[in-house]
Amino acid sequence: MKKIFSLFTVLILVFLPSQAQKATSLISPEVHTDNKITFRYYAPDASKVLLSTEMLTEPAEMLKDQSGVWSTTVDPVKPDIYSYCYLVDGKQVSDPNNTLIFPYERFKYSLADIKGNNTLVHSLHNVPHGKVSYRYYTSSTLDETRTLLVYTPPGFDINAKKKYPVLYLIHGASETEETWTKVGRANLIADNLLVLNKIVPMIIVMPYANVSPAPPQYFTRDMMNDIIPFIEDNYPVLKDSKNRAISGFSEGGGQAINIGLTNPDKFGYLCPFAPYTDTEEFRKNFSDWYPDKEIFNEHLILFSVYIATRDHLYESVIGTIAMFKEKGLRVETHIARGAHNWINCRLYLINTMQQIFK
Amino acid sequence: MKKIFSLFTVLILVFLPSQAQKATSLISPEVHTDNKITFRYYAPDASKVLLSTEMLTEPAEMLKDQSGVWSTTVDPVKPDIYSYCYLVDGKQVSDPNNTLIFPYERFKYSLADIKGNNTLVHSLHNVPHGKVSYRYYTSSTLDETRTLLVYTPPGFDINAKKKYPVLYLIHGASETEETWTKVGRANLIADNLLVLNKIVPMIIVMPYANVSPAPPQYFTRDMMNDIIPFIEDNYPVLKDSKNRAISGFSEGGGQAINIGLTNPDKFGYLCPFAPYTDTEEFRKNFSDWYPDKEIFNEHLILFSVYIATRDHLYESVIGTIAMFKEKGLRVETHIARGAHNWINCRLYLINTMQQIFK
Repeated sequence: MKKIFSLFTVLILVFLPSQAQKATSLISPEVHTDNKITFRYYAPDASKVLLSTEMLTEPAEMLKDQSGVWSTTVDPVKPDIYSYCYLVDGKQVSDPNNTLIFPYERFKYSLADIKGNNTLVHSLHNVPHGKVSYRYYTSSTLDETRTLLVYTPPGFDINAKKKYPVLYLIHGASETEETWTKVGRANLIADNLLVLNKIVPMIIVMPYANVSPAPPQYFTRDMMNDIIPFIEDNYPVLKDSKNRAISGFSEGGGQAINIGLTNPDKFGYLCPFAPYTDTEEFRKNFSDWYPDKEIFNEHLILFSVYIATRDHLYESVIGTIAMFKEKGLRVETHIARGAHNWINCRLYLINTMQQIFK
Repeated sequence: MKKIFSLFTVLILVFLPSQAQKATSLISPEVHTDNKITFRYYAPDASKVLLSTEMLTEPAEMLKDQSGVWSTTVDPVKPDIYSYCYLVDGKQVSDPNNTLIFPYERFKYSLADIKGNNTLVHSLHNVPHGKVSYRYYTSSTLDETRTLLVYTPPGFDINAKKKYPVLYLIHGASETEETWTKVGRANLIADNLLVLNKIVPMIIVMPYANVSPAPPQYFTRDMMNDIIPFIEDNYPVLKDSKNRAISGFSEGGGQAINIGLTNPDKFGYLCPFAPYTDTEEFRKNFSDWYPDKEIFNEHLILFSVYIATRDHLYESVIGTIAMFKEKGLRVETHIARGAHNWINCRLYLINTMQQIFK
């Protein structure tokens, strides 16, 4: 026998995830045949456990059985993806028995994927699938190597003569480059709409928009000077404005507006979803702004803003739309029911993808 | 304004991750210039918070400041990636301020990436990067669409004449198809070893090996009948045994042995890491097994088993090696210090990648 790695530190075995957790293996959430949903959490020593979820207007009490498993069953909901967590003696915990988690820079909620009769546009269906690639690029703006995700459609061939339009898609505050796939399901939505012939094949680029500790407006520079050139150098893409779209959710929607309107010859489609615009960059860009209407008329095919009636940004977004109309831009407004959440955000994307590059 | 989405359910806004968590934004873990590491967790109402981590032989008490933030600072450790969690009044919680999480089917630990002077082979360096693609394939064995990850090296060109060898890499029990990249850093290890000319360019395939509710041995069928054909149909790969390797950690190491030795003409390299073999499939395969030595001599270039002295599987693995030697196979044994963990597993991979396809 060869002894190798003689320089390794001797590590005492203190901790073995694969064994320590075996006792707590539960099915959670479980969707029953009557569409009711049971959530389970093992905590024999807890005094009180609640289920907090987008499905319910207020947290639901869970009950403990003799084996220490807390559970509650909720009534059927509209099939969709819902965030949830447990409140265990007042502390937020995600569901250890569920691998679906909300990529987030703070507390990570679990995701309940309620498929219903499985006809949802954001679900995994037996159709041709594109792929999502995790890429690194060098940001000269931020002097670091950063991550972005790139969706390429089924049948994508990097060397074929075909070139693709590109949608740049930005996450919300405290979210990550994975939120648009793992919560937004941008890749599955594209796969499903493509097989239905509702969209044209496109590349979707999902960067990481948090540039901290650099000031937030550096993301605009990173997008223009680093991300777009990286994509255009590495993928067979169309480089004219009518084949370039930008969207984003919440803070990412505000960033999309900043990026899109300050580069008026670069984006044919600007579709912010519930954009957050109460930022220094936005005020600086648009307070005393007089758009060159000729450039916008030439390039901006669609400026389309999405907001929901119960979104806490509703009034702000309506004001932003009015402001841009006053300045002479054509703005299309889409008003949904519901709140500032990914349930709506997926629908905004489904609508947007069908409007662009046509 | 157009009203769209009139069929949407009205959802009451009960829950807004982006606002609810702002108060708890902390830097954790923080590595100081003297290499000490501070962990922080906001829990004003908790009575007792401990830090549980691979860095320490036992959980460390954390202290609460006036703002409700619990913290503890630990002494410098050997630079590496360490799992940790907080024990908040006895309950495991991951670190909400850290986006690095251990992909796992039960409780998800946080990961502290201690980079040291940043010369680690598993760290992100400024070198050419391959990409990791999330792919779906159709499993005829399991009658479902499943996920796998594919690493392609820098400069990979699907249409060039060059064809690549393939390493199939299997995760451990309760882990997922993301564990080999997010904890194992297989992609960064490959990037870094490639730029040092220590390995040949290879494709790495990381499937999801949990086939439940099907019996565990169905993974062997899924690998042979679905995964390998999917890769060979979709990537420019070399298809002879000397360009096909299989490795896996823990339960995945046991699966690698089952797959590799029952398909003796298919794999030139079989390199299990701390393999778990106390399974029905393993006993069925090897209890009364008389290998066709001619086939193995022709195809199996390297059968190399890795285990650590404090690994709880040490005795079992030594016994397994002896059993295969008795049956006449050439087995190379690598013994490391340390335990059954990913700190060792990354080193096993670093060593293995330098031995295969040469």
